[in-house]
Amino acid sequence: MPNQRVEEIFEGIRKNDRVLIGKGLSLIESSLDSDQEDARELLKKLIPHSGQSLRIGITGVPGSGKSTFIEAFGTALCNSGEKVAVLTIDPSSPVSKGSILGDKTRMDSLSKNKNAFIRPSPSGKMLGGISRNSRESIIILEAAGYSYVLVETVGVGQSEISVGGLVDIFLLILISGAGDELQGIKKGIMEMAQLILVNKADGKNKDAANKAKKSLENALSILYRNTPETKPAVLAVSSLEDSGMEGVRKKVEMIASELKNSGSFDENRKRQNSNWFDSEWKSQVDHFLEKIPLLKERKNQLTKDIKAGKIDPFSAADELSQEIRSRLLG
Amino acid sequence: MPNQRVEEIFEGIRKNDRVLIGKGLSLIESSLDSDQEDARELLKKLIPHSGQSLRIGITGVPGSGKSTFIEAFGTALCNSGEKVAVLTIDPSSPVSKGSILGDKTRMDSLSKNKNAFIRPSPSGKMLGGISRNSRESIIILEAAGYSYVLVETVGVGQSEISVGGLVDIFLLILISGAGDELQGIKKGIMEMAQLILVNKADGKNKDAANKAKKSLENALSILYRNTPETKPAVLAVSSLEDSGMEGVRKKVEMIASELKNSGSFDENRKRQNSNWFDSEWKSQVDHFLEKIPLLKERKNQLTKDIKAGKIDPFSAADELSQEIRSRLLG
Repeated sequence: MPNQRVEEIFEGIRKNDRVLIGKGLSLIESSLDSDQEDARELLKKLIPHSGQSLRIGITGVPGSGKSTFIEAFGTALCNSGEKVAVLTIDPSSPVSKGSILGDKTRMDSLSKNKNAFIRPSPSGKMLGGISRNSRESIIILEAAGYSYVLVETVGVGQSEISVGGLVDIFLLILISGAGDELQGIKKGIMEMAQLILVNKADGKNKDAANKAKKSLENALSILYRNTPETKPAVLAVSSLEDSGMEGVRKKVEMIASELKNSGSFDENRKRQNSNWFDSEWKSQVDHFLEKIPLLKERKNQLTKDIKAGKIDPFSAADELSQEIRSRLLG
Repeated sequence: MPNQRVEEIFEGIRKNDRVLIGKGLSLIESSLDSDQEDARELLKKLIPHSGQSLRIGITGVPGSGKSTFIEAFGTALCNSGEKVAVLTIDPSSPVSKGSILGDKTRMDSLSKNKNAFIRPSPSGKMLGGISRNSRESIIILEAAGYSYVLVETVGVGQSEISVGGLVDIFLLILISGAGDELQGIKKGIMEMAQLILVNKADGKNKDAANKAKKSLENALSILYRNTPETKPAVLAVSSLEDSGMEGVRKKVEMIASELKNSGSFDENRKRQNSNWFDSEWKSQVDHFLEKIPLLKERKNQLTKDIKAGKIDPFSAADELSQEIRSRLLG
């Protein structure tokens, strides 16, 4: 018997109905058991219709103008006939569950574009949950017909590494500074990027930005002296003056087609899929283990004992995992 | 029959033998099965001798002078008779497995102090592994007699949230800027801090740092208007001129004793232990599931099918977890 709600949302997503896309995205973020079951059913129906977009991760140090860039770049893509979805990943406050960035007021003009869809990350989720949701959100957005999915990450750190497992191309945004452009950027993030943009190349800052671009290119030549073919490209842009966006679009398309021709694009998606499988089955197993009444009881008792200082967490984990093990093997 | 290697390392750690402390730390970082067994045995022996240090998380935006601060603060602690261990957490390059920061040349003078022990995070580990190792490293360092464990995190983001699960007190380092001190700092990180330091209050920058301190205090008064008792303290310091370190030490001790008196200190450790238990048993279960030959075979086959495009990762995860479930539930 087909599930009415799932059918409705599925049809709506396929027709690019914004309200139902939103419902689908909320469904996969929900932690209710019944919602989760529906979410799984929905995703299975959508997966065959997904995969055709170019998935671009966008990161940069705080203050580098990521959202202004996404607004300008996304608009440029829409103007050239693309349909653009934006996911923002903000592993936000674990205390107040709020985001300091105030997503609602950002990307104001892009959010009104009928060819664009912006989805802020669910607040209060830890990074693991966000990556999982983002992967599933991409499926929904692709099945809804978006040809570009831009995944924005906040800050420079672990979140980029996770997002690297979700996207085809990684784009790093820098700004010119006192010659220390590279300081705040971890080598790992640099290495993930296929394209580096020096933003805010406008007004008084234009010369500085171009200088920064040059020195960055020099640094990259040294860093990539043994593998020049993987060296990221560098462009100076101004999101504010909206200049360089056409260049970014062309460059991104070029990079995508090179990756596709060399087979790296496919290879990367296959690797991502296999990692997705790996984290997904583990998360499913953890989830159902917690629901087995006997184990749940045992776990709760051990947690009490830990809090009472009767057992250390390490020995308690041993006990519980041994119990699961013997049930499984015995 | 007692395990000779474990006994030796255990005795060495208890005697504060630096070489054997290093061996213990390497043992818990090892991914070899035999090492992991020894590591578990070692940890179980050490846990009763752990827990007595003050665990301090230290974070700040790139360029805020974290390592210079730790060098100055750690030296001040050593001078007042404390034994100081430093763990750095750098979820480093997933590509080259290298760190751009060059830990070896940092904290040069502290690393030579006989009352200090500095341990950089294992390179090439993802954040999950690092947090797990860090928790266990703290056990070793406490059993070795260190009274302060400083856990340094790189960048402002997810790593802080994980480290928050390891420490008693969180310390955030900022520098004065163009009035935008708060911009790059996520609200969540701010809320985790009990003490905020405005660093580089030296030379020409002294006035700017003091102004930044004032404006930060104003902002915090508004942010914490409903819960003033949890408002973080703010101090201006200079790690370079080594000024203010005595003040930081006193403040930290005061905060710790307040937390202990109110019961929050114990509450926090209990919560951390219960979270530790929760992540530990799951990781143990994942680990042994991957070793069951039948499941391993099934998993490898599914991975192949995913790569060949025969099944999507989501359905594959479903299949595998169902198989585990039916084995477990009979």
